[in-house]
Amino acid sequence: MNISKEAIEKAAATIKPYIHHTPVMTNKSIDELSGIHFYFKCENFQKIGAFKIRGGMNATLSLSPDQLKNGVATHSSGNHAQALAYAAKVLGIKAYIVMPKSSPKVKVDAVRGYGAEVIICEANQAAREAALEEVVARTGAAFIHPYDDDRVITGQATCVKELIEEVPDLDIVITPVGGGGLLSGTCLGAHYFKPGLKVYGGEPEGAADAVLSIKSGKVEKAPFIDTIADGLMTTLSERTLAIIKAHVTDILLVSDEEIKAALKLVYERMKIIVEPSCVVPFAAALRNPELFKGKKVGIILSGGNVDLTKFGNWFPAN
Amino acid sequence: MNISKEAIEKAAATIKPYIHHTPVMTNKSIDELSGIHFYFKCENFQKIGAFKIRGGMNATLSLSPDQLKNGVATHSSGNHAQALAYAAKVLGIKAYIVMPKSSPKVKVDAVRGYGAEVIICEANQAAREAALEEVVARTGAAFIHPYDDDRVITGQATCVKELIEEVPDLDIVITPVGGGGLLSGTCLGAHYFKPGLKVYGGEPEGAADAVLSIKSGKVEKAPFIDTIADGLMTTLSERTLAIIKAHVTDILLVSDEEIKAALKLVYERMKIIVEPSCVVPFAAALRNPELFKGKKVGIILSGGNVDLTKFGNWFPAN
Repeated sequence: MNISKEAIEKAAATIKPYIHHTPVMTNKSIDELSGIHFYFKCENFQKIGAFKIRGGMNATLSLSPDQLKNGVATHSSGNHAQALAYAAKVLGIKAYIVMPKSSPKVKVDAVRGYGAEVIICEANQAAREAALEEVVARTGAAFIHPYDDDRVITGQATCVKELIEEVPDLDIVITPVGGGGLLSGTCLGAHYFKPGLKVYGGEPEGAADAVLSIKSGKVEKAPFIDTIADGLMTTLSERTLAIIKAHVTDILLVSDEEIKAALKLVYERMKIIVEPSCVVPFAAALRNPELFKGKKVGIILSGGNVDLTKFGNWFPAN
Repeated sequence: MNISKEAIEKAAATIKPYIHHTPVMTNKSIDELSGIHFYFKCENFQKIGAFKIRGGMNATLSLSPDQLKNGVATHSSGNHAQALAYAAKVLGIKAYIVMPKSSPKVKVDAVRGYGAEVIICEANQAAREAALEEVVARTGAAFIHPYDDDRVITGQATCVKELIEEVPDLDIVITPVGGGGLLSGTCLGAHYFKPGLKVYGGEPEGAADAVLSIKSGKVEKAPFIDTIADGLMTTLSERTLAIIKAHVTDILLVSDEEIKAALKLVYERMKIIVEPSCVVPFAAALRNPELFKGKKVGIILSGGNVDLTKFGNWFPAN
């Protein structure tokens, strides 16, 4: 394994001045109705509204002064784009973000709002990679992948480290799994800082690549992509798969109906705004009481950047 | 004045085991865009999802053992109904709640969920009062008015007391104003615990009774009722008007468009769920920068009990 305990400790100290120490919330009524003791690590209250700032900030701070002066670049339509844009802003460097032209205007505006240069491309993988290559060649910016990057994974690992420090007797932690940056980081954090802490991944049935990849041992594509959890549509990389395979207890699937029910519960009982993607682990715990009943279960609520106009579709009036 | 400093201190101690000490949140991006230092007292995270538990619990705990055994009664379709139902549940007594048949099913279910007996009546004031009289005659339950009651006002005053303890150098506090229970309690709390702290009320243009009542000196009806802030449609009582008149700096009006914009800001930047009624003070501050710029302004975010199906109307898709 390339990522050491010391690397995660160093990342935690390095990014500390730039991020929030997010609160851990509990909720009596949710515990009563589920029979599970939940500890929600609220990364929706994190800088840029998501845990992604941890990896983005750590990767950017890992660059040499020479690399830093050319800025950073990535392709992303999601929270990683905002993370890099924010990191670049606070460090006074340039960020170049390739975004597909299908990206919601609100996300493009948010990235531009941090002062990043947005390069709009066609909405397919080849066009994204071509646009990124072009901008890197033009500017010399350092490419920082959303999850297939040790520095990013190391940053994401700091989240479970904080959770363990706050809830030392935690039994289990569950994270969402998309590209696997958060899940692999959480696997490593658990391994180093609380050996024996079980780690599960929660995955939508409509983007079920990780569960297949763990089974076959190689990176698989999802059989189909159709889910409300729009942050979890990407596939694992060799790098994230290797770490997850070595440490994860299991990947649990949930349906979109279960995601919506979990979302409603969080909104109604906890009064906080979270993304559909981010309640997938919570939905997974509710679906599998035999695994979690009576246990102290940490849920990483990964983000809160939602398009408010979607609420009408998530919670339709009768 | 009938409500003493000692009464508020006693209420704070009495209700403490039954309520949450709610957090005070700040938000850098909202402060930057407004030029105001906001301190949000998050009563949306309070027991039953609203500050009303403070008054409801204090009034119930003020009853003698003889009164307690017959239970409590009120008419309310809102958070006071849940507050009394919850207070009765934890104290092991009966609660009788008269609710108009226009009440949303989700609210009736919530009250029943706490074990209260719900009496459904026609949706007019005369029917509500008749139904209440009938249930009090039948059961001997103690009637606890939602706001026209010293014990309730005393309980609501404990909220600003906590806020002052946490932010001792606060310049101003703003609350919503409906029947005036929270605003009158806040006036008294400020008067006793931080003399000189300015108190404003925020009121919707579509339920503008308090602003008229302060002007004329007697309880006035709103010229018309039409607002998204459905918790603020009631008029002041003689009791709440007298306290507010003696202490308030001003009542500030806001439009529904301003309420929706403030709601969007809280949802997007703070990632918390609040009721439209509860952002009225925040909207009032944003509308009147000349009064608040550079000041430390406390906002009592009064509650978070929203009907999720309404989101589609609040934040319509383009």
